Amino acid sequence: MPYTLLMARWQPNASERLALAALELFAERGYENTTVIDIAQRAGLTKSTFFRHFSDKREVLFGGDRMTGLLGEAVVAAPATATPLETVAHALDAVGREVFTPARREFSAQRRTVIAASPELREREALKGLALTASMTDALKRRGVPDLASCVAAELGALAFKIAYERWSDTANDDDFSEVMRRALGEVQAASASC
Amino acid sequence: MPYTLLMARWQPNASERLALAALELFAERGYENTTVIDIAQRAGLTKSTFFRHFSDKREVLFGGDRMTGLLGEAVVAAPATATPLETVAHALDAVGREVFTPARREFSAQRRTVIAASPELREREALKGLALTASMTDALKRRGVPDLASCVAAELGALAFKIAYERWSDTANDDDFSEVMRRALGEVQAASASC
Repeated sequence: MPYTLLMARWQPNASERLALAALELFAERGYENTTVIDIAQRAGLTKSTFFRHFSDKREVLFGGDRMTGLLGEAVVAAPATATPLETVAHALDAVGREVFTPARREFSAQRRTVIAASPELREREALKGLALTASMTDALKRRGVPDLASCVAAELGALAFKIAYERWSDTANDDDFSEVMRRALGEVQAASASC
Repeated sequence: MPYTLLMARWQPNASERLALAALELFAERGYENTTVIDIAQRAGLTKSTFFRHFSDKREVLFGGDRMTGLLGEAVVAAPATATPLETVAHALDAVGREVFTPARREFSAQRRTVIAASPELREREALKGLALTASMTDALKRRGVPDLASCVAAELGALAFKIAYERWSDTANDDDFSEVMRRALGEVQAASASC
C-alpha cells in the first residue's frame, strides 16, 4: 500500500511519518540508496527533525528505545503473583496493545521484507532483539526473580516474541497479536520442557 | 601476563599470535588507538597476513568463523540417542576441548576485560553469540529435531555457554571448561523448568 494511503489510515505523528516514508523509500530504491534527507523530505519534515527522533538512518525502522522501555515497565507492572513467564506474557501483551495494532500489520509485513534485504538492517534488528531481552531480564530481576530464572524467562519470551511477530505480521493471518503471542509462548514453554 | 610469556607457554600459530598481540595492544592503548598494522607488527607478521586470517580489526578477538563451524559439526556428530540439550552439551564440550584449554584461561580473562571496555567489541561479541546460536539451531534441525525444540535447545545452550565462559575465564576458578559448562547447563535447564 502506498505511503499516502497508509498515512490516511493511520494518522501518524512525526516519528511514524518518518518510519513510513523510510519504509517506502527503502522498498523503492533500497536502503543503501536512500539518505536521511530523502526520508525527511518524503515525510514533509526536516533533517533536524529526523535526528531529534532517531540516532541514525537504520534506527528509523526500530522506533528508538521506545519498545525496550515499554517492555521493562510492563514487566515491573505485572501482577505480583505472576510466574516469570506469565510476567513476560503480560509485558508482551502491553507492547502488543501499544505497537502491534491491526492498522500496523501491513506496515510490519513490509518492514520485515525491507529488513530481510539489508545486512545492516538485519544487524540492527539482531542487536535490538538483544536489548529487548536484556530489558526484560533486568526488569524481572527488579521484581525479585532469581538471576538465572530471569535470564531464562527473558530468553524464552524473546523467542516467543520473534515467532509471534513473524506470524502476526503475515497479512494472511487475522488473529490479534496477543492471541498469536500467547500461543507462541505456550509452544516455546512446551518445547523447553521436552528438551 | 605479557605477550612474550603467553607466547612461550602457548606456542601459537599465526592467527593466535595476532590475537595475542591485539589483546596486548588493546589493553595497553585501547581498541580505538590500535591499528591493524600495529597488531601485525607486534606479532612479527604483515598486514596482508592479518587480512588472510581476519576480515577486520574487531574480528581478531573472535577467531573468524572457527567456533561456529566447530559447534555445528559437533552437534551433527553427537550420539544419535542424545536429547537436544545433551546434543548441545556434547557440542560445547567439543569446543571446550579445542578452544578453552587451561593454557588459554588467562588469555580469555584478559580478553573479557578488553571487550567490556569497547562498545564496538561488545557489539561484535553480541553478534557472534547470535551466530553461534543460529549454527546450533541449524545443526539440530539437520539431526531431525523439530524446529521449535531446536531453537529452544540452542538458546538455552547459548545461555549456559555464556555463563560457563564467564565462570571458567575467571582465573580464580580451576575447574575444566567441560565441568563448568555442564553445571551451567544443568542450572539453566532447572531454571527453565521453574519458569
